[in-house]
Amino acid sequence: MTDLPDIWSLSSSRLSVSSVHKIFNEQTAWVLDGKMISMGIRSSIAGEVRRMEECIGKVPGLAVIMVGQRWDSQIYVRNKIKACEEVGIKSCVTELPTDCTEAEVQSALLRFNKDPSIHGILVQLPLPQHLDEGKVLDVLGLEKDVDGFHPLNTGNLAVIGREPLFIPCTPKGCIELLIRSGVEIIGKKAVVIGRSNIVGLPTSFLLQRHHATVTVIHAFTENPEQITSAADIVVSAAGIPNMVRGNWIKPGAIVIDVGTSPVEDPSCEDGYRLVGDVCYEEAVNVASVITPVPGGVGPMTVAMLLSNTLDSAKRMLDFT
Amino acid sequence: MTDLPDIWSLSSSRLSVSSVHKIFNEQTAWVLDGKMISMGIRSSIAGEVRRMEECIGKVPGLAVIMVGQRWDSQIYVRNKIKACEEVGIKSCVTELPTDCTEAEVQSALLRFNKDPSIHGILVQLPLPQHLDEGKVLDVLGLEKDVDGFHPLNTGNLAVIGREPLFIPCTPKGCIELLIRSGVEIIGKKAVVIGRSNIVGLPTSFLLQRHHATVTVIHAFTENPEQITSAADIVVSAAGIPNMVRGNWIKPGAIVIDVGTSPVEDPSCEDGYRLVGDVCYEEAVNVASVITPVPGGVGPMTVAMLLSNTLDSAKRMLDFT
Repeated sequence: MTDLPDIWSLSSSRLSVSSVHKIFNEQTAWVLDGKMISMGIRSSIAGEVRRMEECIGKVPGLAVIMVGQRWDSQIYVRNKIKACEEVGIKSCVTELPTDCTEAEVQSALLRFNKDPSIHGILVQLPLPQHLDEGKVLDVLGLEKDVDGFHPLNTGNLAVIGREPLFIPCTPKGCIELLIRSGVEIIGKKAVVIGRSNIVGLPTSFLLQRHHATVTVIHAFTENPEQITSAADIVVSAAGIPNMVRGNWIKPGAIVIDVGTSPVEDPSCEDGYRLVGDVCYEEAVNVASVITPVPGGVGPMTVAMLLSNTLDSAKRMLDFT
Repeated sequence: MTDLPDIWSLSSSRLSVSSVHKIFNEQTAWVLDGKMISMGIRSSIAGEVRRMEECIGKVPGLAVIMVGQRWDSQIYVRNKIKACEEVGIKSCVTELPTDCTEAEVQSALLRFNKDPSIHGILVQLPLPQHLDEGKVLDVLGLEKDVDGFHPLNTGNLAVIGREPLFIPCTPKGCIELLIRSGVEIIGKKAVVIGRSNIVGLPTSFLLQRHHATVTVIHAFTENPEQITSAADIVVSAAGIPNMVRGNWIKPGAIVIDVGTSPVEDPSCEDGYRLVGDVCYEEAVNVASVITPVPGGVGPMTVAMLLSNTLDSAKRMLDFT
C-alpha cells in the first residue's frame, strides 16, 4: 500500500476554515469555494516561481497546442495562459487550423519536446475527429506531460506501488478539494460517475490510492441512483446537466461536481450559463459538502496545471 | 467505447454445453471445469504452433526467469514449462539464486530481449524482497511482456480506446470463463475482491471494458459482504481461504474464485490441499455459476500464457 506520490505534497495542506462557506439558511451543505482555495494555491506557486527565478534565473515554461476554433477550448486556453502570467510561468500557444494533419500537430509537439525553456506541454482536447488523439499524444515527451494523459502515466497512476510523473489536473483538483475540506477518504464508499480518460478514470484511481472503495458508473449502468445513494463521496463527471438529483445522494454525502455544460439562458450576458451534472438546488439540501458550478472544480484544474508545470520545471532543472 | 483488443478473439468462442457440469443434487450452481475448457484452448494453440512450424519453420519461444526457491513458484514454473512442451512452444528457464542482485536479473532479461527465438519473457513473481519488482520489470521488452505487467500495458488496458499488447493471464482467463459460460457482462454489477497489480486491478479494467459496473473491494472496505451480495458477478482474488461465505453472494450470482491458498491437510498426499477464497460448499448452493479450486481459474491462467506467447510470436514473425 503506497500513499500518493511526492509531487502530491505541494498543495495538500488542509483547508483553512475561512475558505469554507457555511450558508445559514435552508441549505445544509458546506459549499466549497474552489476559486478561493485555488487562489491560495496559485499564490504559493507564484512564490516558488519567484524563488526559482532569484536562485537560478529561470522560470517554468508551458506550451499549449490548440487545434481548431472550438469556443470552449478557446476559453479554457485563455484562462490557462492568464493564470500562467499571474504566477510568473512563461507560456506560449501554437494555434493550428481545424483541418491540419496529425503530422503537423506532432511536429509542433516535437519542437516543444526539444525546447529546454519548456517544461510542460499540453494539447487542448478534444481534437478534431480526423486526428487520432492517441497517435498525437504518443509523441509528447513523458517528462513534459503536465496533463498526465500519456498511457504510461495512467498505468503508473493505476498500479499501486508505482508513481506517475504527473497526475491529471482535474482529478488532482478533486482530491485536493476533498483533502482540504477535511474529508477522510480511506474506507469510504466512493462513486465516480463517468469513465473518461481525462477525468472519471484517473479520479477512480486516485480515490482507490486513498483506499476508498470505488465504483465507476457509466452509460451502461442500470439504476445508477441506487448506487450513488449508498455512497459517502460522489464525484460526477458525466457532462449531463442536472442528471444527479437530490434523491441520488445519501444525506450527509460529499458531492464533487466536475460537469460543466453550457445551457442557454437569455438573461445572461453571453446568452448561456454553465451548469453542473448535479442538480445543485436539490443536492445542497442533502449533501454535507458540495462544490458549485462554476467556481468549484474548474479553478482547481487550472491551479493543478500550474502546480504540475512548476513541479516539472523543478525536476528538469534539479531545483528543490 | 471500444471492445476488447483483437488478441482477445483467439479463444473467445462460447463454451460447449458438454464442458459445463450441472450437478443434480443439493447444489444449484453450474460448476465450470477450467481444466476441460483450457484443454480445448491448448489444443487449438497446438494446432496453430504446428501450422506456424510448417509454414515458416519457426515455433514460439518462452523464457522464464525464476529467482530463489519458493515451493509455489517452482510448481507454477514447472506447470508452465510442461504446458509449453505439450503445445510445441519452445521454453527455457533461467534460475537465479535468492540472493542475486537486480543487475543479474536485468542482465538475464536483456539477453532474452535480444534473443530472436524468444517471443515471450516472464519473471516469476513474487521476487525476493530485496529486489525492486518495478526496476526489474522496466527492463523487460514491452513486445515480449506476455504476463502483461509492464505499466504501459496496464495503462493501455485501463484507458478505453487504447489497446494493450498483452492482457495479464489470470484476468484474461477469468473473462474467458465468463464469456464461455455465456454470461453477458454488459450492464452487470461486478465486484472484484482484491486489488493486486497481477489479478484484481487488471480484472477490474477488463470487466469495465466489457461495460460492467465495477466495484473494487480491498482491506480497507467496510462491510464487504454488503457490497458483494448486491453483485451479479463476483471475482475473488484476495488469497484468504474461505473468506467469501454463502451469505456474501446474491442468489443466482456468478462466482469466479481466483484465490489458491495451501491449507494443511494430513489426509492429502502432500500434507496440504489448495483452497479458494470462496467457501465452496456454501456458495455452490447460492450461486448460479461457480469455479472450483483447484481446476477453475488456475488452468486457464496457463492456457492464456500460451495464447499470449503464440500471439507474440505471430506478431513478431508477422505470421497470420
